[in-house]
Formats: sequence, structure tokens, C-alpha cells
Amino acid sequence: MNPFSADPSLAIGSLGESALIEKLRTWLGASSPTSPFGIGDDCAVLPSVTPNSQQLVTADPIIYGKHFDDSVGPEQAAAKLLRRNLSDIAAMGGRPTHAVIALALSSNVSISWIESFYKGLALEAEQFSVSIVGGDVSSADGFLGAFLTLYGETLPQPRPLLRKNATPESPIFVTGELGGTRIKKHYSFTPRLAEGQWLAQSGVCTSCSDLSDGLGKDFANITPDGLVCVIDCEKVPVATDAESISKESQHSPLYHAFNDGEDFELIFTLSPDTNLDAFKLDWEANFDTPLSQIGVLREGESGLILANEPSNFSATGYEHLR
Amino acid sequence: MNPFSADPSLAIGSLGESALIEKLRTWLGASSPTSPFGIGDDCAVLPSVTPNSQQLVTADPIIYGKHFDDSVGPEQAAAKLLRRNLSDIAAMGGRPTHAVIALALSSNVSISWIESFYKGLALEAEQFSVSIVGGDVSSADGFLGAFLTLYGETLPQPRPLLRKNATPESPIFVTGELGGTRIKKHYSFTPRLAEGQWLAQSGVCTSCSDLSDGLGKDFANITPDGLVCVIDCEKVPVATDAESISKESQHSPLYHAFNDGEDFELIFTLSPDTNLDAFKLDWEANFDTPLSQIGVLREGESGLILANEPSNFSATGYEHLR
Repeated sequence: MNPFSADPSLAIGSLGESALIEKLRTWLGASSPTSPFGIGDDCAVLPSVTPNSQQLVTADPIIYGKHFDDSVGPEQAAAKLLRRNLSDIAAMGGRPTHAVIALALSSNVSISWIESFYKGLALEAEQFSVSIVGGDVSSADGFLGAFLTLYGETLPQPRPLLRKNATPESPIFVTGELGGTRIKKHYSFTPRLAEGQWLAQSGVCTSCSDLSDGLGKDFANITPDGLVCVIDCEKVPVATDAESISKESQHSPLYHAFNDGEDFELIFTLSPDTNLDAFKLDWEANFDTPLSQIGVLREGESGLILANEPSNFSATGYEHLR
Repeated sequence: MNPFSADPSLAIGSLGESALIEKLRTWLGASSPTSPFGIGDDCAVLPSVTPNSQQLVTADPIIYGKHFDDSVGPEQAAAKLLRRNLSDIAAMGGRPTHAVIALALSSNVSISWIESFYKGLALEAEQFSVSIVGGDVSSADGFLGAFLTLYGETLPQPRPLLRKNATPESPIFVTGELGGTRIKKHYSFTPRLAEGQWLAQSGVCTSCSDLSDGLGKDFANITPDGLVCVIDCEKVPVATDAESISKESQHSPLYHAFNDGEDFELIFTLSPDTNLDAFKLDWEANFDTPLSQIGVLREGESGLILANEPSNFSATGYEHLR
């Protein structure tokens, strides 16, 4: 759905800022607490942090033309905005608490698009127990972007799952299946919150990150300096959708698993002395989410070594800004 | 200074995202704590909240073409970004703690502009004791915007200064001088943090907000439903710069005091039984900042009544998005 309206009376410019903000609050409904704990004062006042937990914060936007386009409904764009931030909270083993949204938009953005976007955001926020506590609206000619800052907290006992704590001989796992995002997962993926929280509680997970820029780039997130990440290409769980994508792209399905962004699966390491059979059984007792052991960290020059690598293969991940 | 570069080798597109983020961290220097308390993991982990204080959050961006242009240096743009958010913390009587910055920018933005912007932001952040704990970089064709989410906390004892707690017969005050922002204050204003914190401690301040959209609009922030805001035009402190602006604009200096945005002064009410002479003496003992009693809240239909109003005067404040 194209977010812009050729009819000025249907565009947000016809409302002005104050009326628009009032509507945004209405559309957010119960997901937006009453001021001072929500929108309506100079700042929002936040609820207290749960004792013995640590606060987490992350920020990711969605921008028209970059993260979504006319093929996508406003509800899907809203889902993506929240879920890509939730994926970061999941990668730390946390649970989400509240969010602030700053909107930058052209005055010709249609009111109905924004209404559906905010109503969609409200549904998503309720589903994941997130309060939208604050926001801002700024005009920006020819632009439409929503910038979310999402807060969360660790569960009371454990520490957050950090990126680079792993030691040599740590086995490397990924959740789910990779490389199928160009078809539908960009918008409908499930952030691995339950899995991340479970890993944080397990006591054996030594590092974790989410896969947002492709395995070929994000392997580095869990690879400390002085270690090398060894991945067995035959162990990488390639999504069924990657097959169809492959037919159009002329690249192999494995190529998409390594180089496409936005899988939003977790990549993590376990302590080298973990009983892997028991761990996998325990995982299967808790989750339907596929779990794949794809490699191991070894001592050596930092970087990536691929076992069973196809000829002429390239695994660099998705590079932004180029 | 124009932020874009015609030479691709001098633009951020030549770096790519990972190298740019590494540079951003270097440029932020000491204002950006080490991961996990700063940039470098899926989320930042936040320091604990001071006991008996409440957390505050606000979000305001700066966007090229809207909040700054080529007449402005990147350091000035950075100062404006932080200070406009600090003004919201000031209006709640809080002190700032940490910030998250999301950057959306075209790949042809020049590296040197971004370097000066981040170094300027680091200086500002250190001056106001703000840690930059997290961020994001997204590409957006032909766009340059920086979206800041700023956190703060109230001082341990008092409650935050909210907007609409005032009762009838409450006197209304503003800090500083209004209407001179078109000349230089847009970038060099001082957020009234000390004054806001002092007001929160005073026990007599019943409501407070900052003036970002002009007195003619922001009076409503401290005017509860069922009360009317009565302002004496002759008591409004008009900035000297408003005189020069007036000569070019064909509007009166008072017009600019009511209708121009971005004064970033405080507007607040005191309890009706406050000893005003003692309050003013106390203020002067603490601050050089001008203090002006401009009116009073009365029972009546919500809205604004102007005493000593010039003929054909219009006081609606600055309207965004139109």
C-alpha cells in the first residue's frame, strides 16, 4: 500500500501536529499508558525496574523505500518495526517492557495509512506486552520513517547474554532456518524471545546475537578476537523458501543463508563442556523452533572458515550503506 | 556547511556500515561507554537507576532541511539535537543520564560532516553528563536525520514537574526572553536544567513545560481543562533580537514571542498561596536567568485571554506539518 495521498484533505498535513498526536494516542489505545506514564507531557515517566534485573535498550527504525515498500501493508510495516527491535532483546535473553517512537513524515502521508500503522503497532505491542510510553512527530519532505527505541530487562537472576564471551571449542548453534527472508519472513518472523530467555536461564549459553545481516557477517558477533569461527556448510539449516529465491537469483540457496539479512534467528555458543545431547533434548522439550549445531569456535586468526564450502562461494553477509 | 559530498570517496558510502559504526564509537570517545554499557552488542545494558528517583524519557530528532540547513555547522546541529531533548528533561525538573541515537542518512553524506557532528555531540554529552549508550545507522536516500532518545531521572526526593496540575489563581511565569530564536538561539540556547531541578525542589511549583512551539500554543501545556490562561502582553519578556527580526518580517516583536518556536524557555505555575516576593528574591539569589510573571490561571472556558493585546494580533504558536 502506497503511504502517500494525492488528495491533501486525506493527508496528515490537513490535521496539523496537535490533532495528529491526539489521533496517534487514540489509535495506540491501551498500549499507550496515560500521562505521565505515557504520551502527553514533556517527558514520559517510566515504571520502576524489576529488582535484580538489568535494563536493556536497543533502537532500530523502519524507513519507506529501505525497509518496506508499496507491496506491504501498514500493519506489516508496524509488525516489522517492533519485531526487529524485539529480536535484539531476545538476543540478550531479556523481556521487552516499553518503547518510544519518533515519526518523521511528509505532510502528504495519508491519514489512513498512519491510522492502520498505529493500530497495527498497538496490536503488536499488546501481543508482546510492550507499552508505548512516548513519541515525537516531525515533518520531513518526501520521507516516511518510524524510529523505535525499545527497552527491556533481563529476567531477575541471570545476566544478559552478551556477544563475545565464548572460549575455544565452544559449539555454535542457530535457531530456525536461514535464507528465506526475501519471500515473506521480513515481515512475519517471530522474535526468539522465549528461546533467548531460556538460554539466559540455562547457565550454559556463553554468547548470543541475532542474525540480522546474514550468517556470513553476523558470525563475527559471537567470535571473540583470537578465535576463528568454523562453520560446516552442510549443517547450515537452509529455508525451503531459499530454494524458490535461488531460482530467480541465480545464487544457491546456501548463498542466501549466508548473505541475506533479516533472518532474525539467534546464533549462540554453549560452554565447551556442555552435554550436547541433554541440551538438545531439553530444547526439544521446550520449543518447536529448529535448533542446528553449525560449527565450533577454534583458536586461530579471527575470521570465518567454511567446511564443505561449495566452489566459488562468497559469504560476506549483507552490507548496508554501500 | 552542506552535509553531502559529490566525491564518493569522501562519503560514508565508501566506508560501509561496520566501518562507519566503528568510527562513530571512536568519535564519541569517552561519552560512549564500553559494551555492554554502550554500543557494541544487540542491546546496551543500562546502569542502575538512582534509588527513590523516577526515570524520564523524551525523543526529538534533528532533520536536515527542517531543523538545520547549510548555514549551520555540524557541531551546532549536534548541540541542537541534544539541547532540545535536554529542555524536555529540564521541564520535568530532572537531570539527564543517557541517550540512544538512531541515524538515518544517505550514502553520499560526507564523512567529515558526520565526524564533526559526532565529535560535537560527544562534547555536548560530556558537558551535560550524558552517556551515549546505543545507536543505529540506517541508509535513507537523500535524507539526513538524527533521532535521539534521551533518558533522565528526577532528583531523589521530589516528584517530576508535570504539566496540568495547576489550580485557579495560580500565577504563571516564564524564564528568559522570547521571540528571538530566528537569529541565533535555535542552536545556542541553554536548556534550563538547573532552574527546572530547583523548581522541582521548591515545593511550590505546580506545573511546568518548555516553550518549543511558541507561547501562543504552549500556554495550553500548563492550562488544565476548565481553566483559562490570562496573559498580560505587556509583561511578556520580548527578546532584543525580536526587534531585528521584526524589521524583516513586518510582524511586531511580540508576535514573534507568541508565534515562533524553539525558545526552549520554561513556562510554569506556582501554588496560589506562594509568597511571590520571597520566591523572586530566592530565584535571583540562585539564577541570572530572567524571570517574568506574565499572567494567571482563572476559572473559565479553556483557552487564552490576552490583556493589553495589540490590535489585529494573532497568537496561535508554531504549527508543524501544515
